[in-house]
Amino acid sequence: MLDLLIKNAEIITMDDAAPIISDGVVGISGGKLEFVSEFLPDSYAGARRVIDARGNIVMPGLINTHTHTAMCVLRGFADDYRLNEWLFEKIFPVEARLTREAVVAGVRLGIAEMLASGTTSYSDMYSNEPASAEVVAETGIKANLSNGVIALSDDFVFENDRAWRELTTLAKNWHGAANGRIRADAAIHAEYTSPPWVWEKEHAIAAEYGLVTHIHLQETEKETEECRQRHGGLSPAEMFLKHGIFDTPVLAAHCVHLSETDMRILAEKHVTAAHCPVSNLKLASGIANIRSMIAHGINVSLGTDGCASNNNHDLFEEIKLAALLSKGTTLDPTAIPAYEALKLATVNGAKAQGRENETGRLKAGFDADLIMLDVHAPHLQPVHSPAALAAYSCRGSDVCLTMVQGKVLYEKGEYKTIDIERAIREVHELAVPLVR
Amino acid sequence: MLDLLIKNAEIITMDDAAPIISDGVVGISGGKLEFVSEFLPDSYAGARRVIDARGNIVMPGLINTHTHTAMCVLRGFADDYRLNEWLFEKIFPVEARLTREAVVAGVRLGIAEMLASGTTSYSDMYSNEPASAEVVAETGIKANLSNGVIALSDDFVFENDRAWRELTTLAKNWHGAANGRIRADAAIHAEYTSPPWVWEKEHAIAAEYGLVTHIHLQETEKETEECRQRHGGLSPAEMFLKHGIFDTPVLAAHCVHLSETDMRILAEKHVTAAHCPVSNLKLASGIANIRSMIAHGINVSLGTDGCASNNNHDLFEEIKLAALLSKGTTLDPTAIPAYEALKLATVNGAKAQGRENETGRLKAGFDADLIMLDVHAPHLQPVHSPAALAAYSCRGSDVCLTMVQGKVLYEKGEYKTIDIERAIREVHELAVPLVR
Repeated sequence: MLDLLIKNAEIITMDDAAPIISDGVVGISGGKLEFVSEFLPDSYAGARRVIDARGNIVMPGLINTHTHTAMCVLRGFADDYRLNEWLFEKIFPVEARLTREAVVAGVRLGIAEMLASGTTSYSDMYSNEPASAEVVAETGIKANLSNGVIALSDDFVFENDRAWRELTTLAKNWHGAANGRIRADAAIHAEYTSPPWVWEKEHAIAAEYGLVTHIHLQETEKETEECRQRHGGLSPAEMFLKHGIFDTPVLAAHCVHLSETDMRILAEKHVTAAHCPVSNLKLASGIANIRSMIAHGINVSLGTDGCASNNNHDLFEEIKLAALLSKGTTLDPTAIPAYEALKLATVNGAKAQGRENETGRLKAGFDADLIMLDVHAPHLQPVHSPAALAAYSCRGSDVCLTMVQGKVLYEKGEYKTIDIERAIREVHELAVPLVR
Repeated sequence: MLDLLIKNAEIITMDDAAPIISDGVVGISGGKLEFVSEFLPDSYAGARRVIDARGNIVMPGLINTHTHTAMCVLRGFADDYRLNEWLFEKIFPVEARLTREAVVAGVRLGIAEMLASGTTSYSDMYSNEPASAEVVAETGIKANLSNGVIALSDDFVFENDRAWRELTTLAKNWHGAANGRIRADAAIHAEYTSPPWVWEKEHAIAAEYGLVTHIHLQETEKETEECRQRHGGLSPAEMFLKHGIFDTPVLAAHCVHLSETDMRILAEKHVTAAHCPVSNLKLASGIANIRSMIAHGINVSLGTDGCASNNNHDLFEEIKLAALLSKGTTLDPTAIPAYEALKLATVNGAKAQGRENETGRLKAGFDADLIMLDVHAPHLQPVHSPAALAAYSCRGSDVCLTMVQGKVLYEKGEYKTIDIERAIREVHELAVPLVR
């Protein structure tokens, strides 16, 4: 007896052995995918619940590999400013005022937004992450959590640093928690915000606990050039290589300004580049050349970045924009076709999180992390190609069901683990007064 | 007694005198806006219907100034191909098979999609436009309709040409019809698809009936360069100028590859450039420099282009992308701020259609063409800035009410003038078999 059977589905498996299954079935038991196939297997003996997909698209849940979830409380608070003014005059002063409770409220709202738009796992870098871990545990989503160490002063002491304390707490108490849904990431905020001896200690904890290290890398030209000036011509990627940081798995957000050498380093050291096209355009950082990265063999995933520079968590926007920007900037409409674009947000995202044998594909034995897209709206008809529809026509709002480890967390506007009215009220009570 | 009062609304008027009205009221009577203000006027004597907006955003309906609506039947049919292969091997052969009934079914589905995502008026160029006009009349939307004349052979005879016949039918029978909701546009498909003597006859009919002329202009570099080679170095814009085509109002789609001279011509002749950022990226045509166009004084509006190169009619995507691309390509995050981006799809769109004194702003005396955005979803909370929310966080699916000339055409998933099940079924019965 299965827990759940989904039938009559257009399945985008993201498993290259059988990428698209038309009018197929998905069997789920004990939080895992039992089968994903064209026909019911002979062993089928009923299911506690049967969902008739009525031709809807079923695909792996999306994976957002770079965000600062709590920043949704700053959505629309400061837009269209120059980067320095935006960060130092608008964002940082407000963030300094955000309490633990405000962050927790923001994280809950952000998770609600992600679940409603098809995200089943995300990689976060922010403050108060052990508190966020409790929200992740409670809401049922998956997350890789980290707090990026910033060490700008010479008398930096690890033990006194809040980010470091949170990071060690995450590694010791939360890594693998909630049935593996939560993972701790080590995190170096960026090359320009800490010295190499700090990176090396981050690397040591990553090696000790088997963590991915989440960093910001070469987001702006300024960041890249100033590093070269400080370090005898070496780029941030070259500096991290030199100090052994890439010897454990690294998730590098942005990667907008990579040289040929940088690309070869990232490919060789299996560093994932988390492409954040909306944020990079909005903050005028530039346009990452992901087509070239992919040709170099780099694992490219997608991120929304925080809502203050996006201004939402809709990964379908990033999927479409990643494909469009590649076509438009290389002047080749065949660049990043629809199915490849979907890979960025699924298979490649799973790899970025160290979850490649667990999620990102619909495949027997994997966690049942999946979403369903309701294709019965005018803007999704007719369905000539499920992959093209998902990549180019869909919006996050077309998600009608989101499931993690076999548990339905969102279905047709209803949140199963979040009191959404209360979540919004708490943001207004606990966070908004600190912002304005 | 008003027909309708909307209260407790965050109003984005797009009227520079008072662009944002917080907690305001909108009064509607006889299809017109009676008042748009902070407080109820003394003359208020009740309304037949009162809508409590509960803090939702009310703004002008969006105007899509370049589409081929019926092409929604080709949504996802052929993606990620090179332009020539896409057009000549995929799109044109299928379009040649589309019957009048297939086009009508496609137009009805496309209009449903537009209404549901907040579009209240569109400028179309396609075949069978007199039949489309009937659908426009019936569904309650506004549209400027045209069929672009293509005259590639030397023995082209106007009277035998279907596009020309449709165009004259539109001008004679439909211009100003349906209470002014329908306007005929003259249309020259493009510089490279007809000779100057054909353009001049188009111009004559535009002058005679007071029509906007809808054209494709400098979408690709190839188009622009080949024109220069054929015509002693003159660009398509220079050729149209030379032949007097810009002496009546022109709506020029794309304008991706404009020289400094071209920009000066468009500004001086009050030509509107319909920017289609999704389509231009997807077909790898390039990225139009709208910031420079606007600085030159050109009226820039937005278009989705047909769904085969987009693949939807969601103008909120174009609004966001227009702003993002300007920021990202000029490396200036202050380029095209949120309110300016909204202008492209409202005020500027109205001007592009020759409707600047009728729609595109919420202002007493204007047609009541407006939309309401439901801001109570997680991805739209909290609301720090209505304009930033509409430009950067909203999707077409956030529209909960669409009204044209005071008549509600779409409300919370319900179409008031379209049998949506039947519309989708007709596309499947009449169009899909001709596509595959």
